[in-house]
Amino acid sequence: MKSNKLVLSKETSSVEEERKKRILENVYPDLLRIEQELKKQTFGPVPLVNTVSRYIIDSGGKRLRPLLMVLSARLCGYKGDRDARLSVAFEFLHVATLLHDDVIDGAEIRRNRPAANTLWGNQAVVLVGDFLYSKALMLAIEYDDMRIMKSLAEAANLMSEGEIMQLLHLGKIDIGEAEYFEVIKRKTAALMSSACKVGAILGGASEDQIERMADYGYHLGVAFQLVDDLLDYTGTSQELGKPVGRDFAERKATLPLIHAFDKSSEEERTWIKNLFSKDDADPEVFQKVREWVKNRGGLEYTERVARKHVMKAVDALSAFPPGHWKDVLLDIAEYTLSRRF
Amino acid sequence: MKSNKLVLSKETSSVEEERKKRILENVYPDLLRIEQELKKQTFGPVPLVNTVSRYIIDSGGKRLRPLLMVLSARLCGYKGDRDARLSVAFEFLHVATLLHDDVIDGAEIRRNRPAANTLWGNQAVVLVGDFLYSKALMLAIEYDDMRIMKSLAEAANLMSEGEIMQLLHLGKIDIGEAEYFEVIKRKTAALMSSACKVGAILGGASEDQIERMADYGYHLGVAFQLVDDLLDYTGTSQELGKPVGRDFAERKATLPLIHAFDKSSEEERTWIKNLFSKDDADPEVFQKVREWVKNRGGLEYTERVARKHVMKAVDALSAFPPGHWKDVLLDIAEYTLSRRF
Repeated sequence: MKSNKLVLSKETSSVEEERKKRILENVYPDLLRIEQELKKQTFGPVPLVNTVSRYIIDSGGKRLRPLLMVLSARLCGYKGDRDARLSVAFEFLHVATLLHDDVIDGAEIRRNRPAANTLWGNQAVVLVGDFLYSKALMLAIEYDDMRIMKSLAEAANLMSEGEIMQLLHLGKIDIGEAEYFEVIKRKTAALMSSACKVGAILGGASEDQIERMADYGYHLGVAFQLVDDLLDYTGTSQELGKPVGRDFAERKATLPLIHAFDKSSEEERTWIKNLFSKDDADPEVFQKVREWVKNRGGLEYTERVARKHVMKAVDALSAFPPGHWKDVLLDIAEYTLSRRF
Repeated sequence: MKSNKLVLSKETSSVEEERKKRILENVYPDLLRIEQELKKQTFGPVPLVNTVSRYIIDSGGKRLRPLLMVLSARLCGYKGDRDARLSVAFEFLHVATLLHDDVIDGAEIRRNRPAANTLWGNQAVVLVGDFLYSKALMLAIEYDDMRIMKSLAEAANLMSEGEIMQLLHLGKIDIGEAEYFEVIKRKTAALMSSACKVGAILGGASEDQIERMADYGYHLGVAFQLVDDLLDYTGTSQELGKPVGRDFAERKATLPLIHAFDKSSEEERTWIKNLFSKDDADPEVFQKVREWVKNRGGLEYTERVARKHVMKAVDALSAFPPGHWKDVLLDIAEYTLSRRF
């Protein structure tokens, strides 16, 4: 029987390590350019805005969204140097959501540091989120392409819908799989899909290729969120940079739990419902919950669904001829399943 | 000596009443169309979003921003029927700011009703604000004009800057006039300016006319905020639909107070600083403060500045030939000075 920690790993760790190293080497110059643009764009006249923006941006994060935009542009033949600037819009939208999420969750720890709202209060955090949000739009406007504006506005709209739906589901364990997917495709997949789509638009891709890149980002985003939700049951707080079991403690039902619940007896359902409704997060209780989720197949099932979406992301890339940037995007899709943080 | 309540009134009240009646008659059909569009656009699949949106939208409000857009379009010769739909974007942006402001101010009463956050919590209020914000952008995108997108994004960006600046000034009485104007031109004038500008763009106006309409909206917005700040010292809570003295109680220094402070002795400054720094809002203390602000010329001065901006708004309209819609916009500019709520 394999350990919890290895549930996602079907490969030897050396294959995984190789891939991770290869991705980093391939994207490193672009990551540097993205970081430089992020620094440049968070240097404005109001110190509080700079401080809060930098704090949340410096809290880590993989810059996955801007990176996806830049790589998608490359795949579609983009040769200019205006990609990094536009890509920052996607990190800003993402970070604005994190800031508003901090208000929402009353989060106290995010990525091993205190959440922004505990340092500056809800007021500043909401406003700096608004500022970054509008800044993202202003950056996009420079590119003078209504398709880009539309994609960003739609993603933002879906993200707020997803967050609202998630809020309404809080404390409900019997929401069902379909409802769960409605949430994650909005709150996570929409922005990644938009990043890839906008990259393709910038790269001058055909209508069909643009849609394929949107599909790639969409399925990658769904898989990414599924793995995120899985790691909250299987990871360690050291790896994740935040406590594990947070979703359960915050009474947020994710796929591992939803599936386990579906596969349970009435008696077990009563037991887990009772634990789920409680406000206090007891680590020992969570150990039991995690064991039960695993025994009911919640982890394996979630992994299987994530793998299916990675396959769909890979499939979307079949519209593109073989080449270096396609390989990088394929690696990233595969990496989604082996990541540990 | 005139009473506090009449500080703004240089005209007989019958002239004022006439004007108010005339404005209402002239804009009534457009107001109805705007209300219909607002209803239509706040009917979506997520009940919570509809409920919170409708609550804040139904809390009253004069629909000034959408109305300005529609009237500006008319003035510039717009003959179509797509104006009301676009105008809703301005009410949505405005309302999104109010919702985020409720989190910000911890406001408990807005327009005679409990603030939204006391009913649904900060979380829902922030998210519904985000939703309306993105919805505004999506409405604007339908009009396929990058100038419109740019104007909206800039306004949103300035608004968040203004709110952040205001937050940073909280509790400071010696911020000075210049800083105060930096705040109000962002938090209030920018959106009204954008509404007028976008109306002119929709109406197919020339570059010069578009800029003049932006000027009209800008100066109207500054005057509007000045009168708002004045009414918080001179009005009654019954007229305003919210408690008077709220700015002082929330330690928000506005022009009446800033001017009075500038014109005071060191001794008085110490006295007012001490009162201003206190958290509790004592109505009797506020009576004294209001009397002192008046005696130091804070009310008259604010009115004078508001009048100056109304004159500039009127002047901006000189770029347009005489006509019905110009008369309506002139009436609205004049009305800014006589309004009581």
